[in-house]
Amino acid sequence: MTYLNRILLFAVIASPVYCQTELPLMPMPAKVTVTAGGSPLTIEPDFSASIQGAGASDARVRASVQRALARLTAQTGVPVSTKLGAAAVTPKLLVTVETADHPAPQKLGDPEDYRLSINGTQARLNARTPLGAVRGLETLLQLVQPGKTGFELPAVEIEDSPRFPWRGLSVDVSRHFMPVPLVKRTLDGMAAVKLNVLHWHLSDDEGFRVESKRFPKLQQLASDGMYYTQAEVRDVIAYARERGIRVIPEFDIPGHSTCWFAAYPELASAKGPYGIVRLPSDRRVTMDPTKESTYVFLDGFIAEMAALFPDAYFHVGGDEVDPTDWKENARIQAFMKLHKYPNEDALQAYFTRRLQKIVAKHGKRMAGWDEILRPDIPKSILIQSWRGQKSLAEAARQGYDSILSAGWYLDLIQPASEHYAVDPLKGETAGLSAEERKHIFGGEATMWEEIANAENIDAKLWPRLAAIAERLWSPENVTDVNSMYSRLEATSRWLETLDLRHRSALLLMRQRLAGTAPTQPLEIFASILEPVKGYTRHSDKTHSYGINTPLNRLVDSIAPESDAAREFRDAVDRYLANGTARKSGAGIEAFLRSWSANVPQVVPVLAANGILLETIPVATTIDEICKTGLEALTALSTGKPADAGWTQAKLASLDEAAKPKADLLIQIVPGVKKLVEAASR
Amino acid sequence: MTYLNRILLFAVIASPVYCQTELPLMPMPAKVTVTAGGSPLTIEPDFSASIQGAGASDARVRASVQRALARLTAQTGVPVSTKLGAAAVTPKLLVTVETADHPAPQKLGDPEDYRLSINGTQARLNARTPLGAVRGLETLLQLVQPGKTGFELPAVEIEDSPRFPWRGLSVDVSRHFMPVPLVKRTLDGMAAVKLNVLHWHLSDDEGFRVESKRFPKLQQLASDGMYYTQAEVRDVIAYARERGIRVIPEFDIPGHSTCWFAAYPELASAKGPYGIVRLPSDRRVTMDPTKESTYVFLDGFIAEMAALFPDAYFHVGGDEVDPTDWKENARIQAFMKLHKYPNEDALQAYFTRRLQKIVAKHGKRMAGWDEILRPDIPKSILIQSWRGQKSLAEAARQGYDSILSAGWYLDLIQPASEHYAVDPLKGETAGLSAEERKHIFGGEATMWEEIANAENIDAKLWPRLAAIAERLWSPENVTDVNSMYSRLEATSRWLETLDLRHRSALLLMRQRLAGTAPTQPLEIFASILEPVKGYTRHSDKTHSYGINTPLNRLVDSIAPESDAAREFRDAVDRYLANGTARKSGAGIEAFLRSWSANVPQVVPVLAANGILLETIPVATTIDEICKTGLEALTALSTGKPADAGWTQAKLASLDEAAKPKADLLIQIVPGVKKLVEAASR
Repeated sequence: MTYLNRILLFAVIASPVYCQTELPLMPMPAKVTVTAGGSPLTIEPDFSASIQGAGASDARVRASVQRALARLTAQTGVPVSTKLGAAAVTPKLLVTVETADHPAPQKLGDPEDYRLSINGTQARLNARTPLGAVRGLETLLQLVQPGKTGFELPAVEIEDSPRFPWRGLSVDVSRHFMPVPLVKRTLDGMAAVKLNVLHWHLSDDEGFRVESKRFPKLQQLASDGMYYTQAEVRDVIAYARERGIRVIPEFDIPGHSTCWFAAYPELASAKGPYGIVRLPSDRRVTMDPTKESTYVFLDGFIAEMAALFPDAYFHVGGDEVDPTDWKENARIQAFMKLHKYPNEDALQAYFTRRLQKIVAKHGKRMAGWDEILRPDIPKSILIQSWRGQKSLAEAARQGYDSILSAGWYLDLIQPASEHYAVDPLKGETAGLSAEERKHIFGGEATMWEEIANAENIDAKLWPRLAAIAERLWSPENVTDVNSMYSRLEATSRWLETLDLRHRSALLLMRQRLAGTAPTQPLEIFASILEPVKGYTRHSDKTHSYGINTPLNRLVDSIAPESDAAREFRDAVDRYLANGTARKSGAGIEAFLRSWSANVPQVVPVLAANGILLETIPVATTIDEICKTGLEALTALSTGKPADAGWTQAKLASLDEAAKPKADLLIQIVPGVKKLVEAASR
Repeated sequence: MTYLNRILLFAVIASPVYCQTELPLMPMPAKVTVTAGGSPLTIEPDFSASIQGAGASDARVRASVQRALARLTAQTGVPVSTKLGAAAVTPKLLVTVETADHPAPQKLGDPEDYRLSINGTQARLNARTPLGAVRGLETLLQLVQPGKTGFELPAVEIEDSPRFPWRGLSVDVSRHFMPVPLVKRTLDGMAAVKLNVLHWHLSDDEGFRVESKRFPKLQQLASDGMYYTQAEVRDVIAYARERGIRVIPEFDIPGHSTCWFAAYPELASAKGPYGIVRLPSDRRVTMDPTKESTYVFLDGFIAEMAALFPDAYFHVGGDEVDPTDWKENARIQAFMKLHKYPNEDALQAYFTRRLQKIVAKHGKRMAGWDEILRPDIPKSILIQSWRGQKSLAEAARQGYDSILSAGWYLDLIQPASEHYAVDPLKGETAGLSAEERKHIFGGEATMWEEIANAENIDAKLWPRLAAIAERLWSPENVTDVNSMYSRLEATSRWLETLDLRHRSALLLMRQRLAGTAPTQPLEIFASILEPVKGYTRHSDKTHSYGINTPLNRLVDSIAPESDAAREFRDAVDRYLANGTARKSGAGIEAFLRSWSANVPQVVPVLAANGILLETIPVATTIDEICKTGLEALTALSTGKPADAGWTQAKLASLDEAAKPKADLLIQIVPGVKKLVEAASR
């Protein structure tokens, strides 16, 4: 029976666990009242919708309701007609919208409130504006769950409006391009969790990503052919508007602009030749702020882009300007001397002032990163804080509007709980006056894409982005982490119905690594791993991540957060809190035994693939950790403290085990460490 | 620890198992020689391709090679440029195509042969025609697997050409519509397994699915808005041609045509009113073959459609004509009398002769189902046999060309092995002369869609269709079932890289049924189930499947074939063949214990959802079966025959267990039955 035994895995299934006691909503609405004993509204093929009020003829409202009906079919398998009924018939969904859309682009602060009332016969959605209806429909869809009568909407009363008016996601399409379908499904996900700003980081050293008709060499020479045509940009903007999302372009200057010079070398501060930055070691060059021709170019460029992007804000980057090129250029140094600029910061301030005038001339408010904040810049600009809440507080005190991004860098692979703990109005901003706080509009999660690409980016965005979205939408006191994780799992499943691929893409990547071998050993192995955090991979010399570096290692196929490891850690905490009898540790024991038993199953898979070879030490370390944990459990069950020598040796080896291997972290180490420490007391 | 225990599942993972000893190719090429000790060709970012020969400038060849390069990236995660290099550089892939494409539509019998030669420095693909290159590129892609050096192509020499020139799939888009993206990904999958005919069943009682500019009421009144525009049809045909696939339309008349009369009632044999058939109980009406106006209409209609669909064949259905309307219509009876037609069959023969003349007039060869074969019909027609190989043999003996579909009805939910055993030239056709055999062009799998829709059809098509494709392409002696299943699993994974959703869609459907509960219990439960076979569901009065019946029950989310159950059955066979010591039964025991242990886990999930309630008896039956199996194992380990009363009782309860419940079959019953029978001997 070796053939069969080889594949028999008595595995603890590392499935996400939660007791669903709350409605599976994220962001949690401002006010939710479940009708005690109320009958649910069952979704049947005769489900129908009508719209009334001044918004009944509004195109966005009609399209949104029809889209919601199609999604209802996808979420239930019940074929629901997308035809909108006459209000005379009693529809199962009655949408009342008081006003039609204003024709202008969506503005910051456009009302998003809605009310939703569901009983056994009807769901009623009321909104003052089409935008509010768009938000309320997402809540309605998120409420659909299987129940006693089939797929149901629960009897509930909801009143909802957002805490912050600016709730965004910034995506970096320069380091790795996001094709239009990926941008669109990202917008679908954003709308689902009620985000309302897509900040499109369209240029960086690694590539220029939008068609310019005035300066076509930008896309011809600085994009490797990967860019959005203006028609595609307009299509994305319209798609976003349908979903209540503003689109703000960012063209990052005067730093982060090397690729521009491959097209227009006269803009550069240093001598050529210039090229797209393909490798971390490639030379980066800064824009020349001293030439009038630079401003003539930018005036023409911004004129074109300001017309293409209808939003009131226009982001010019401004971050991380490396002063080297300016220091080494005698002409630039002479310019600084002439104008009495004491340092390169002052030169950037000059550039920023000139730029702000150009942006304003073309009818836009300028947005930029921390560095654009200088005493002499008009108050009309918007500061996006990437350096921390301190700069947010400073900006607000000086009367500048601002949004927070620090703490919400999704590319740094932090757990959702850490992002969830960040609040634009807590920490260093807590001392602001009510008037000052009004300047803090909200925030944006950011997704920098040095080490993410179109294949795996969904998993970097989702579901963690939903937790940030909740912070920005829901009342300040919605902070319970267990509740968040429980609802995050439900939300993650719901997002999959929008064809987001945060789970399926990683599964396929791991299947690709398994080749023709059984996939389950690799799945169990992967379930307790997480990628290294922060900038560890960015500074990794061995792999040196450039724009063409394959992202096909095991680490690239691993979600930022291991549900299994979190479950294990929580189980250890409960076990240690509730006495340590052998029997009550049975669950933990089973986990450890199965992860250990999986090691001999997975090692042949790892050994068969040159790309997986690097992870064999991860597997052998897992085996070691599990055995240590089992020894600790045995010691705990005796009630006698473990031998000090054993403890010292095990803690030392756990410290080793905690170090990254193959850019992976074994996330059961903390739990096992707790067991060892407890066994030694 | 109940919280943790509740979700702890010591489950046997029901993952598909196979020892990969052969190359993961399907269909197996005519001749494969693995170069012993030969170095593989590693896929690196510098992978490049060139084309030479007269085909180098051929648009289809160039597009196919570029598509292959993009797929290479998807299959490996290695970013490979899709630019085609100059032949002067040594490319990793050198494609030589002797001829450019002929401008006419792809014809039956266009050469598809190719040779593929891979060593450590280069892969060389040689083909006489662009079509051969298209086929060879699929083999190349299917060979890519992870190995010691990363993703590799093995050192191999392949010579390949198809056994049959007609290798098709018929899809029924009338009962449930297939949107264009689904049709396209189906074409991708077909091309991957070297099928070359899409037979598009575009009309039936339930709906008319193509735009007619001459008779626009067809799509306006007979389609519920679900139809292909002529632009979409042309787009699909071009997409298919790029992939070496002919597209043949079917308009099924004079039966199966009820929906036409909703648009053009004058064509009907019976009095109105008529409508689209939405429920099995709805009235079905037959076309009137006695009116000259019918042929005037068909002449105009076929003129239009013959121009839209460029293939040389045009399918008119002709199957299952219900004579009732003709019998009950006095005018039709009078017509028959006048023309001395002894029965309605003879009347249909008259209709078929008239129709054939119209089809021929518009430059096409007429194809139809068995029923169109009548002594007085020209030899130019093609017979598609749905009734069995007997009619295939008869047609061939009479000198008619034919293709086989009987035995390849994917909607009947048979295992791949059953379809694989069907051969157009075995059984009743085996006695044909060499000359007669030439009339048998190959065959088509069919997918009737009464009980399948766009959400779950991928899983009805794939991977089983690949096994049929192998029968039609590979040499007659490629018949080993174990080898087939092993390669089928590899092929199934490979097809997922084409975004086919045969696994992912069902997973999402089951996740939808689980709601917010853990998904794993439902997965383990589902893994040993199969849907009922044949026409059981079609005749099910309780559910009465119409075009708007929800297909969201558990049975709709279950793949046609349970890999876990097949594995279990095989394991039982091996166990019984190799002695029945306790130890050698450990694997089987583990399977049974874990399926049984899962029952208390899954029942709460089933009880929480009204749609799953019907499956609770399935769960309790599984528990019973597993316990019976475990008792049999215990008896077997003692070597003493079990008590006759026990045997009788258990066999009786297994017979009960084998009966469908909730339209599901518990597919471990046969294995357990073998254990019980063995224990009693």
